[in-house]
Amino acid sequence: MSAGPVLIDALRALVGDRNLLAAAEDLRVAQADGRVADGSEPCAIVRPADAAQVSEIVRLAAGHGVPLVVQGGRTGLVGAGLAQQAGALILSLDRLDRCIEIDPVNRMATVDAGVRLSALNAAAAEFGLSFPIDLGADPMIGGMIAANTGGARFLRYGDVRTALKAVEVVRSDGTGERMRFGAALWKNNGGLDLKQLLVGSSGALGIVTRATVALQPLPQARLTALLALADPHAALMLLRLLEDGFGTLLTAFEGISGAALAAALRHVPTLRAPFGGPLPAYAVLIELSAGSLFDAAELEDKLGTLLAPLMERDGTPILDVATDRRDGLWAIRHAVPEGLRSEGAVVACDIALRRGDVMRFRDDLAARLAAAAPGLVLHDFGHIGDGGLHFNCVWPKAAGPLPDGIADRARAIVFDAVVTEYGGSFSAEHGVGPRNIAQYRRFTPPGERRIAGAMQRLIAPVPIGSVDFGTGWSEELDDVE
Amino acid sequence: MSAGPVLIDALRALVGDRNLLAAAEDLRVAQADGRVADGSEPCAIVRPADAAQVSEIVRLAAGHGVPLVVQGGRTGLVGAGLAQQAGALILSLDRLDRCIEIDPVNRMATVDAGVRLSALNAAAAEFGLSFPIDLGADPMIGGMIAANTGGARFLRYGDVRTALKAVEVVRSDGTGERMRFGAALWKNNGGLDLKQLLVGSSGALGIVTRATVALQPLPQARLTALLALADPHAALMLLRLLEDGFGTLLTAFEGISGAALAAALRHVPTLRAPFGGPLPAYAVLIELSAGSLFDAAELEDKLGTLLAPLMERDGTPILDVATDRRDGLWAIRHAVPEGLRSEGAVVACDIALRRGDVMRFRDDLAARLAAAAPGLVLHDFGHIGDGGLHFNCVWPKAAGPLPDGIADRARAIVFDAVVTEYGGSFSAEHGVGPRNIAQYRRFTPPGERRIAGAMQRLIAPVPIGSVDFGTGWSEELDDVE
Repeated sequence: MSAGPVLIDALRALVGDRNLLAAAEDLRVAQADGRVADGSEPCAIVRPADAAQVSEIVRLAAGHGVPLVVQGGRTGLVGAGLAQQAGALILSLDRLDRCIEIDPVNRMATVDAGVRLSALNAAAAEFGLSFPIDLGADPMIGGMIAANTGGARFLRYGDVRTALKAVEVVRSDGTGERMRFGAALWKNNGGLDLKQLLVGSSGALGIVTRATVALQPLPQARLTALLALADPHAALMLLRLLEDGFGTLLTAFEGISGAALAAALRHVPTLRAPFGGPLPAYAVLIELSAGSLFDAAELEDKLGTLLAPLMERDGTPILDVATDRRDGLWAIRHAVPEGLRSEGAVVACDIALRRGDVMRFRDDLAARLAAAAPGLVLHDFGHIGDGGLHFNCVWPKAAGPLPDGIADRARAIVFDAVVTEYGGSFSAEHGVGPRNIAQYRRFTPPGERRIAGAMQRLIAPVPIGSVDFGTGWSEELDDVE
Repeated sequence: MSAGPVLIDALRALVGDRNLLAAAEDLRVAQADGRVADGSEPCAIVRPADAAQVSEIVRLAAGHGVPLVVQGGRTGLVGAGLAQQAGALILSLDRLDRCIEIDPVNRMATVDAGVRLSALNAAAAEFGLSFPIDLGADPMIGGMIAANTGGARFLRYGDVRTALKAVEVVRSDGTGERMRFGAALWKNNGGLDLKQLLVGSSGALGIVTRATVALQPLPQARLTALLALADPHAALMLLRLLEDGFGTLLTAFEGISGAALAAALRHVPTLRAPFGGPLPAYAVLIELSAGSLFDAAELEDKLGTLLAPLMERDGTPILDVATDRRDGLWAIRHAVPEGLRSEGAVVACDIALRRGDVMRFRDDLAARLAAAAPGLVLHDFGHIGDGGLHFNCVWPKAAGPLPDGIADRARAIVFDAVVTEYGGSFSAEHGVGPRNIAQYRRFTPPGERRIAGAMQRLIAPVPIGSVDFGTGWSEELDDVE
C-alpha cells in the first residue's frame, strides 16, 4: 500500500520536481484540514497542472495500487480530504486554478476545481455578479462540490447543488477516463442528471477538474440588522414575519445564542458590543439585499415599520436592534467559531432540523446534556432560516482539560436525538468524512447504503477518497456482480 | 406480454372492481397525453389507493412479466406516461391524492404523488405560501418529479429538483420494496443524495408515491408588464438591466415572437390587444413579485424609472408598455399554445440555450428553416430569462395538410444545431420519452448512456415506464455483471 520509487519517479516525470512534494513539513501540513490534524501521513503530494495530468495520476496510482485522496483548500471539517491510510497519495487541486471564465449574459462561471471561492467572487463582481454561497472559510470549488456547501445565504440562494450546471470529471476506472456531465444551461432535462451524484460525495465518486456554476446579480443595496431577543423562541415568529414582509429580499437569518455571542465579543478584540444593555439570551442576524433601484435607507425604513409593533411595549419579543448598511455585523457572526475555540475545547455537531423544531430541540438537548455531560456549556449558533444548527458545546478552559469520553457521549446523545427523534440530519452542510462515517453507517438504512455503494462503484470502480458509502467494499461488489 | 385473466383478477381483488378499468373508452383516454394520442393500447388501468397497493401491483406485474407504466395527470409532452407495448398495464396515480400536509414554519409540503399542482397551491395559499412552479397545465406532483418541471418562474425559484426534499418510492425490484430518500430538511448532506436520480427520470427509476417539497412565501405585491420591442435582440440587454435593478424581485422574463403573439390574439377571443399600435416584432412579459411591505404601485414607479431612458427618443428599444397589477397579462402568454394550434399544424421543439445565444439562434435557424422547409412559419416563445425556448413552427391551415417529412426534417435541423453547434439541450423542461428518445440516443455519449443505464437497473431492476436510458437493455446488464 505504500508508493515505491517507481511510482514516485513516474509522478515526478509527469508534473516536474517542484510539483511532487515529499518533505516532512509538506506531508505534515497535508494531514490537517479546517478542524484538526488527524490524517495519516501520505507518501507524497502531487500537484497536477491540468485535467490530462489528473487523468495520468489516476492511472498511475491505480496501476500501483496506491490509494488516492484529493485535497482542495483543506477547509473541510469532516476529514474527507485527508489520507486515511499511511502511504496514500494526495492529489492537490491547487494548480488547477487558471480558468475563470465569466459569461455575464448567461450569468454563469466556468472555473477550474482549484479556484478559490474568493477568486471566483472577485472575478464575478467585475460583472455585477456573485457566487452567493457565504462562508467563513475560503474553500476551492472542487471541495465545495464534494461537500455541497450551503452557508449563511442558503435561505435565498440554495447550495452548490442548486448552482452547479456542469462538471468535468476524471473517473477512477483505471483508464482515468475524462467525462463531462451537464452543460452551461439553466434548463436541461435530456437524460439522467449524473452530476448530481458527485455533489456531496466527499470526493469519492470522481475527481472534478472543472465546473460551471450559476451566478446571481450582486445586490446593490444591503442592510444587516442584529436583533436582541428576550426569548429565543420568538425567532421563528420573526422569521415568518420577515419572509412575508420582505419576500425574496431576505437573504440571511442567522441565530446566535447568548453564550456564543458573549464568547465572540470576549475573545475577538476587533468586535464592538452591538447592544446598549446587557447581552440578550439570543440574537438574530438578518440580511436584506436588493437591486440598484432600492437603497439601504429604504430597507431600513421598512424594517422599522415591521419591527415597531414588536418593540413598543414592555415584555415585547425584541429588546434592541443594531443595523448596518455595510455588512459590518457579519463580523460578529463570523467571529463566533474563533470565540468558541478561545473559550475552551469545542464539541461540534453540524445538524439540521425542521425550522419549527430548532428552538424546541435546543431546550430539550440542553437539559439532556446538562444531566449526561455536566460541565459542557452549550454555545450554539447557525442558520435558523434553513434549520441548520451548529450545535456546539464548550468545555471551558477554566475547568481543565476535556475529560475522556465526554465528547463522544455528548455527540452520541445529540446525533441520536436529532436523527431518530426529530427526523433531522447528522450532517447539515459539512458532508461525510472519516470523522462522521460512523454516524452515516448508524443512521443510513442498509438498503440505501447498498444502492449508494453500488452507485459509487459504478462511477468510481477503483476506490478514491476516504469514504465508502456502501456496506463494505467486497460486499457490494458481490451485490452488483 | 399481455395480461392474462389471472393477473387481472388479482388486480381486481386488490383494488376493487371500480378501480380496475378496462372499458374501451378508458383504454382510449389512457393512450393520450398533453400532446397527442400515440400510446399503445394497455390491457387495463389500475388505480391503487396507497403505496402498499402500488407495491403489490409492482410485484404482480413483475411476476406476470407484464410491462408497467405509471400515468399521472397526462399533461406530459414526450409520451413518457403512455404504454409503448400493447397490453402493458397502466398504473394511475389519481387516487393517491389524499395527503396534503403543509408545515408552515418549515415552509414545506408533504403530498401524495397524485396531488395536482393546483390543489397543492390552494392548500399552501391558506398559509401565505406557494409552490412556485408556474405552468399552463395542471400536472400531478409525481409527474412533475418525473419531468423535472421548470416553467415560467424558474428564473427566481428553480425547478422541481430545487424544491424536492424527500421522496417515498416503490422500487421495481420484484419485491416492490418501499424506500424513502431524503427528509423534510433544507440542509441535509449525510450521504449520497439518491433521490436526485429520480428527478427527470421519466418514471423509469421507481414509482414515487409521496414527496416533500419546499414552498416559498406567496408574494403579496405583484406587477406584470408586457413590453413591445422594436428589435428582439434588445431583450437580452433588458434582462440584465432588470436583474441589476430589481435583483431577486424579478420572477419571470418571458419572450413572445410577434407571430406567436398575433396567433394568440387572433384565435383566443377572450384576449384584448395589449398595445395601442400595430403588434411589435417581439414582446417580453416580465413579472415583479414582492412581500407585504411593498405594493404594486411602488414596483410600477421603479419600473417606470428603469424603462424611461429606453422609451424616450425615436428609435429606442421599447415601443410600448402595458402593465397590470393583477397578473392579467399572463393570460396572453398562456394563450400562445392554443393560438398556435388554431393557426395550423405545430412542429414543436423544447430547447434550451445559453441566454446570450437565444436571439442569435432564432435568426440563424429561421434562415435555415426558410431554406430547408419553406412554408413552415416560426412562432417561437419561451422563457428567455432561463434560456428555455419553445422553438415551435406552424404549417398554416391555409397551406393544406402538413406534407410528409417536413416535421422530421425541421426538427432534425433544429436539434442538430442546438446541441452540436450551440451546446444547448434538445429537451429543456419536457424530459425524455418515446417522442424524443431518438435525440437522447443521438446526442448522449455512449459512455454516459452506459452509466445511466446501469444506474437505472440498480434502482429499477425490472423495467418500468417507457424509457431506457442505457445503450440497450441486454448490453448494460452485461456491463454491470
